[in-house]
Order: sequence, then C-alpha cells, then structure tokens
Amino acid sequence: MIDRTLRMDKIEHIGIAVKDLEKSNGVFAALFGKAHYKTETVESEGVKTSFFEVGPNKIELLEATKPDSPIAKFIDKKGEGIHHIAFAVSDIQAEMDRLQKEGFILLNKEPKLGADNKLVAFLHPKSTNGVLIELCQERP
Amino acid sequence: MIDRTLRMDKIEHIGIAVKDLEKSNGVFAALFGKAHYKTETVESEGVKTSFFEVGPNKIELLEATKPDSPIAKFIDKKGEGIHHIAFAVSDIQAEMDRLQKEGFILLNKEPKLGADNKLVAFLHPKSTNGVLIELCQERP
Repeated sequence: MIDRTLRMDKIEHIGIAVKDLEKSNGVFAALFGKAHYKTETVESEGVKTSFFEVGPNKIELLEATKPDSPIAKFIDKKGEGIHHIAFAVSDIQAEMDRLQKEGFILLNKEPKLGADNKLVAFLHPKSTNGVLIELCQERP
Repeated sequence: MIDRTLRMDKIEHIGIAVKDLEKSNGVFAALFGKAHYKTETVESEGVKTSFFEVGPNKIELLEATKPDSPIAKFIDKKGEGIHHIAFAVSDIQAEMDRLQKEGFILLNKEPKLGADNKLVAFLHPKSTNGVLIELCQERP
C-alpha cells in the first residue's frame, strides 16, 4: 500500500519571474499555442500571477506588485527567469515534518495560503542545490 | 480532433546544474524519499546526468565532465541551480518550425541526440524571458 502522506505527486508548477506580465503572457501563449487560463493577485506576497496549463503541469508567471516584494528583489538580483519549482503533495504538514527531519531548511514553519487555492511551504535554496522548492497542497 | 503534432504534452523534466553529482544525488534522494533511477553520460555535451522520477515528470541533475562544457560555464556564471525546463513534444520538427515562425530563437537548427533516448532542441533564453527551454521527443 502506498503511503499517500509521504510523497511528492508531480511537478505542480514552475514559477517564472517576469517584469511585465502582460507582455510575458503573450510570449508564453505563443510558446504553448494557447493563452493563460487565469490570473490571480496574492496581496500578501506582493505578486500578480498568471497560469498556463501544460498537460498535468502548470507554468505560473509572477510579476511584482510592489518594489519590496520577493519577486522584485529576485529580478533585481538575477533578472527574469525561473524562480521556483513547486511539487504537489497530499499532506503538506507530514511532508514538511519529514523534510525537516532530513535536514532541509523550511522558510515557513506552518503551511501558508498561496495562489491557486493552495497551502504552500518553501524550502531554503541553500539546502537544495540553489533551487527554491515549494510544496503545495490543494486546500480542502 | 487534437493535432498531436503541434502541442507540448507536459514538463518532461527540469534540468538542475550541480557541482558534485554524487553529493546532490543524496540531497535529492532525501527530498523525494527515493533514489535516482539511472545515470547517463552524454560525452558530446560534456555532462554526466542522473534522473529522478516524480509522478509524470523527471528531475535531471547535471554535472560537467569538462571545464568548457555548457554546465561548467553555467555554474561559473550563476552557481548551482535550475538550468532548463524540458517540454515533451510529439513531433519535434513540427514544433521547432512552429516556434521559429512565432519568432522564438532556436539554438540548434536540427533536432540533436540528447540524454534519455531523446531528440532535443533548445530555445534561446533571450526569446523566452530568461528561461532556457528544451523540446524533447522520445526517439522512435
């Protein structure tokens, strides 16, 4: 029997930091041959997002809504590009506990509300080869 | 009827540049709760790779085998981290033709042999918001 509480199911999405969401929506619509299917602003994170579907996965474009948001800082430092990978999990708290025991550094102690009706948590890139990793669980 | 020749099916894998493949295999095994399922060296690209399965998607770790390989140059410039996103396509030549017409810059004119028994082609990050994108098709 598979223990559903202790695994990552798939790449839920890849987050890409962009300067101009409207312009980038056009770029990625041309890339995928179809438009984004929704946009969403997450005020607490200072970010406006748009989502594209690619089979079982999504691409999330992220534009900063204020100069001190994490996405604005990322672009200032590194330029536009891939910001994070999000893995879908069935039980985010169980997975956070497991990963903490494995020595990964969690950026938030409790799951928090993210875009797309998800509970999310982030792992510090220092513990994951420079990759910012998000865990996300569909909210009940 | 869906035109299977003109779409991206899913994120086939995410390529992550690492300095020490053996060490990073341990990190990602702890992350996913399971070991990599294969390693492969692509001499023509100067790279040694390992693959992890995450549901329908894969993570490909990339270690340079020589100092002038693209992965060595990437790490020199940006450090360890996400190197590219690969999308699975059913007909790589048709998709390359479509994307070229859309104005994307192709880094190779013909599909070339990549890791994991794939035909691959890359899009220049300048035309895709700083993201290096690979198209890959299972070899017949």
